[in-house]
Amino acid sequence: MPTQVNLVSKSLRPTNPLVKATLTDLYQLTMLYGDWLMDRHNIPVTFDLFIRHNPFGGEYTLFAGYDEVVKFLQSYRVTEEEVAHARTLLSNAEPEFFDWLLTLDCSEVMLYAQAGLAFPKVPFMRVDAPNGIGKMLETTLLNLTNYPSLVTTNAMRMRLAAGKNKTLLEFGLRRAQGPDGGVSASKYSVWGGFDGTSNVLASSLFNIPCYGTHAHSWVLSFGGFEDIPLNRRMLLNRNTGRQKDFVEYVLWLRNAILKLGHTHTGELAAFTAYALAFPEKFLALVDTYNTLGSGVPNYLCVAGALYDFGYTPLGIRLDSGDLAYDSKQARAMFKEYERNYPLAEQSKISASNDINEAVLYSLNEQGHEIDTFGIGTNLVTCEKQPALGGVYKLVACGDRTPIKLAKDKTTIPGKKEAYRLYNSQGQAVNDLMILVGEKPPKAGQRVLCRHPFDETKRMYVTPSRVQPLHRLLWDGQNAAPIPSAMEIREKNMEDVYNLREDHRRVVNPTPYKVSVSEQLYHLLHEMMDRESTIPEIM
Amino acid sequence: MPTQVNLVSKSLRPTNPLVKATLTDLYQLTMLYGDWLMDRHNIPVTFDLFIRHNPFGGEYTLFAGYDEVVKFLQSYRVTEEEVAHARTLLSNAEPEFFDWLLTLDCSEVMLYAQAGLAFPKVPFMRVDAPNGIGKMLETTLLNLTNYPSLVTTNAMRMRLAAGKNKTLLEFGLRRAQGPDGGVSASKYSVWGGFDGTSNVLASSLFNIPCYGTHAHSWVLSFGGFEDIPLNRRMLLNRNTGRQKDFVEYVLWLRNAILKLGHTHTGELAAFTAYALAFPEKFLALVDTYNTLGSGVPNYLCVAGALYDFGYTPLGIRLDSGDLAYDSKQARAMFKEYERNYPLAEQSKISASNDINEAVLYSLNEQGHEIDTFGIGTNLVTCEKQPALGGVYKLVACGDRTPIKLAKDKTTIPGKKEAYRLYNSQGQAVNDLMILVGEKPPKAGQRVLCRHPFDETKRMYVTPSRVQPLHRLLWDGQNAAPIPSAMEIREKNMEDVYNLREDHRRVVNPTPYKVSVSEQLYHLLHEMMDRESTIPEIM
Repeated sequence: MPTQVNLVSKSLRPTNPLVKATLTDLYQLTMLYGDWLMDRHNIPVTFDLFIRHNPFGGEYTLFAGYDEVVKFLQSYRVTEEEVAHARTLLSNAEPEFFDWLLTLDCSEVMLYAQAGLAFPKVPFMRVDAPNGIGKMLETTLLNLTNYPSLVTTNAMRMRLAAGKNKTLLEFGLRRAQGPDGGVSASKYSVWGGFDGTSNVLASSLFNIPCYGTHAHSWVLSFGGFEDIPLNRRMLLNRNTGRQKDFVEYVLWLRNAILKLGHTHTGELAAFTAYALAFPEKFLALVDTYNTLGSGVPNYLCVAGALYDFGYTPLGIRLDSGDLAYDSKQARAMFKEYERNYPLAEQSKISASNDINEAVLYSLNEQGHEIDTFGIGTNLVTCEKQPALGGVYKLVACGDRTPIKLAKDKTTIPGKKEAYRLYNSQGQAVNDLMILVGEKPPKAGQRVLCRHPFDETKRMYVTPSRVQPLHRLLWDGQNAAPIPSAMEIREKNMEDVYNLREDHRRVVNPTPYKVSVSEQLYHLLHEMMDRESTIPEIM
Repeated sequence: MPTQVNLVSKSLRPTNPLVKATLTDLYQLTMLYGDWLMDRHNIPVTFDLFIRHNPFGGEYTLFAGYDEVVKFLQSYRVTEEEVAHARTLLSNAEPEFFDWLLTLDCSEVMLYAQAGLAFPKVPFMRVDAPNGIGKMLETTLLNLTNYPSLVTTNAMRMRLAAGKNKTLLEFGLRRAQGPDGGVSASKYSVWGGFDGTSNVLASSLFNIPCYGTHAHSWVLSFGGFEDIPLNRRMLLNRNTGRQKDFVEYVLWLRNAILKLGHTHTGELAAFTAYALAFPEKFLALVDTYNTLGSGVPNYLCVAGALYDFGYTPLGIRLDSGDLAYDSKQARAMFKEYERNYPLAEQSKISASNDINEAVLYSLNEQGHEIDTFGIGTNLVTCEKQPALGGVYKLVACGDRTPIKLAKDKTTIPGKKEAYRLYNSQGQAVNDLMILVGEKPPKAGQRVLCRHPFDETKRMYVTPSRVQPLHRLLWDGQNAAPIPSAMEIREKNMEDVYNLREDHRRVVNPTPYKVSVSEQLYHLLHEMMDRESTIPEIM
């Protein structure tokens, strides 16, 4: 039995207004017409949405995107405008079809789904529906889950690489594959353990923390202190409670105390102006001209001045160069500067230049001094593997349990449920699929778990705990409430950190076991035998 | 001088409603506040949007996405809702800033852009604007052009690989990076030389051809001929003008003539049903059970029946297996079948399984028999390089011409124009950047073209033709009309096919030359000298 949840009636729409019935492949529409014409559109069918392999050479996946799927099902209808376009594409179809198309909705669709940590072959989602609408949903459901699951998994791999105590920020909007690639990456990065995003719209849409300071263009746009207007040079000195000329103080520090004649004056003016605008959130991008020769000393000068005015500066950002070396050098310079500004060493170091999972591990080995990583391109485009191969396959049609035969791609037929079995140490050891109607596995009861295709691989498991994996998310009328991005983040991190270390390690991870019940095993092999054609060799 | 175009006043909005002012990074907003506070938001600035390297190891790029940029500028405004969110992010900002934010628009922005074939360093776009709004546009403009240019270029590389006479279809929606990644991929694949898409919504939005037949689920959902209702078995025989039982005819052909007892009956029924629904567009997916043992013979049976009824079947689709071998075997089977159905050999063969540029070249070598390629994952996610590194850099600020210094990443300062110089054979030989105000190059006049950074690399060019590369696309009020997707496709294909073969070849292509004028060269090196700090070694 799937987990019981209280469904609620809400009226949500997909985040992206482009998500509509015709955001699909034409063949869904031609098949819909064919099924309608053959009066087969109401046969009850079941589709499984699943993957065949984990991404990135790993042995786990975080299933995501089901939130938008629920909104899509809830708001599903084919508009007059879409029907008009369909008429041009199916020009010879019987006119009554288009009248019927206008009535199509998801009121007879049942959606069961996993959430978070999941594995190949076990359905991420099961759709029970009439044949017509069931087939029609394929492309949109895959689009709404493939990329979200990929980027959530990618984010989690980076979280594991960086470690729990680092701040990870998604910075990928400018390189994302389209506006929605950016917006959904922001959300699903948080699902995968990131702390926030630079994306303003995403932070608003999904209520996730937003981070950002200034760009190189800010630094470049300042030629010198003459670019700070005279009426904007005063800053409240919190220690004295009086306004004081901050520019004058910075210049005094620079010349009298620090002897920083060699640093770039325009850059120092830019930092000073930024500090005047954001005295409580001063974080300086230090690599416009020369990171260690100009940027870091200029930061320390302005940070020290802010400190003397009673503020706590945040730190620096590195956006180029050797991040391990520069961060260690910068930390050493901070320490040396403590005679001027006692909290200097605690300045945070952010880094954001072409970081990926491998770079994070390499930085760890080099003993870097970075506190916060801003990760863009490699996070949001999933450079190591930019697509997840989720598929949506027919497994039940009326009384039949069809099977698609193909080398390494044979589907597992039948309407199925799935359970996660835990051993006595509380570790997940096996995901078991059974047919709907079979007796579910129970804690303390020994159950035979078979490899779906290899008859020699089987084991008895007596689970200490049994977790149903499928939740009913949509019953045709009502939707399950979806937790907030930050709540899902906590759950996903907990599940992945609790996964056995050999399943989640980067190098040669051990595959997690996925099995079928005895009854499902026999159905599968009976169908393989029945449906494969026998060539005649003469 | 940029090309003169007639601008028109239209009221277009971005295709994706998520494209709005706050689809940007937070640091744009913090800098906007800083500039406003320092009264620097109205200084005239120039930003260049450009790439440093061509994608996919090639030596050309097709710049795309400017259509959506124009719509974005045209519709730019910050809504009350967005301002409310900005207030939470900039909690200590002066309240008047938010009033001003509501008035921000692009009425003082001028946008110049290239279209299509372009090269690194030469600005794809130049933005002349007040400092505030100019900075603010960075992330959105990059998002709207990076991926479109990448996928357009990727599509063109596949077009070159497949050859001009093949049909190329974009099938990537299910694996795209989000809904918009799918929709924009459909459009920009056509810009890059594809013939159409499977994406119904995209075909409607952009008026591009839509293609599609049926999926494995169609085949799987038929158990046998009993699944075709009795009242749907008749088909007009065009030769006799009378309705006739098509199912009976197919079964007669199969049993009496073809002796196809070994093929899969459910598959044959599925093909027959599809032919009944689409007698003029019959194209069968043949790899559900056994491509050559069942799918192709079943196709030929139904195709032959359709032919005898006066219809011309389209062909088959292969979605797995060895595409070169299977297509050649299928073609041979078609030929052999001509005694039953004279046009059999002309059946088209479509293929659609994990095709990429390298696979296309490999299939060519193997002498494949494929007429149409459906390309999904590798086209839309640009697997070989999933992000384009476009950047947006400040090059003029008031009277200053700032420069960002970095190893291999130094920017070229100043407000610039660009020209393409052609030799007497009509071939493009060099893109030349000059400063606005310099005398533009002219046909028949000798001009010195210098490598921007290497003082030893320079040449005199006497062009036979000079093409201004930048067009004014937006003047603050009016926008240049953008041609249709199919028109842009023709232009891009013409430009790339006219490019010298050594620039567009896959293996070790020759870099195309990009130069600066003598005057720009001296400005660049003067700025490099002035802005680099000199460390003191003691």
